[in-house]
Amino acid sequence: MNEVLAANQSFYDAHEAADFEAMSAIWEHSHRVVCTHPGWPILRGWPDVGLSWRRIFAGPGRNQFIITNEAVVIVGELAWVTCDENLVSVGDAGTVAATNVFAHDGDRWRLVLHHGSPVVTR
Amino acid sequence: MNEVLAANQSFYDAHEAADFEAMSAIWEHSHRVVCTHPGWPILRGWPDVGLSWRRIFAGPGRNQFIITNEAVVIVGELAWVTCDENLVSVGDAGTVAATNVFAHDGDRWRLVLHHGSPVVTR
Repeated sequence: MNEVLAANQSFYDAHEAADFEAMSAIWEHSHRVVCTHPGWPILRGWPDVGLSWRRIFAGPGRNQFIITNEAVVIVGELAWVTCDENLVSVGDAGTVAATNVFAHDGDRWRLVLHHGSPVVTR
Repeated sequence: MNEVLAANQSFYDAHEAADFEAMSAIWEHSHRVVCTHPGWPILRGWPDVGLSWRRIFAGPGRNQFIITNEAVVIVGELAWVTCDENLVSVGDAGTVAATNVFAHDGDRWRLVLHHGSPVVTR
């Protein structure tokens, strides 16, 4: 469970640092990966998913995350984390609910699916 | 793959019919299930997830779905479907990107995670 949580944190560290090489190393490079950024349509396959991260990191925005409310489910070589991404950005704040699915490749946990959705404040 | 897609369709059929018993039969009744409705915070465990469906079905809204852009990944006893939920409601329309994770219980595929997020039209 600690390894899964560490992999999950690495994902947010790479995002916060806008570090494409680190983000690339976290994802499985395969056709089966899926990424749905908040408000975006579904992206599938590493080429499209990787390109989205290049574009996000090339943009002007920088995000700082505080990750809370994590829960982990491990089933054999697969695991998923659900958590709250608490965004702390200049002039902006909010929470994104996230689902992150990891597959163990025999060496370490690689991200195969990310889905984020803004939580609407009521 | 056909069984997974059939289970996925059953989920939307139950939703469209606002049929709690059918929805209940689709989900695994366990502590590990997770459901993130569009705009909602993360709900975990069947009691809270089931309650959310009771509340949604008790509300005035009725949704009709056309499911498109489905892709399935199967890994042993687990599978996930990503798809577009094209909502066709009176006076409303839009697309929700969905992730649905299923676990095979030896008999059939049961939903263990649902995550939906509105796709923002650009």
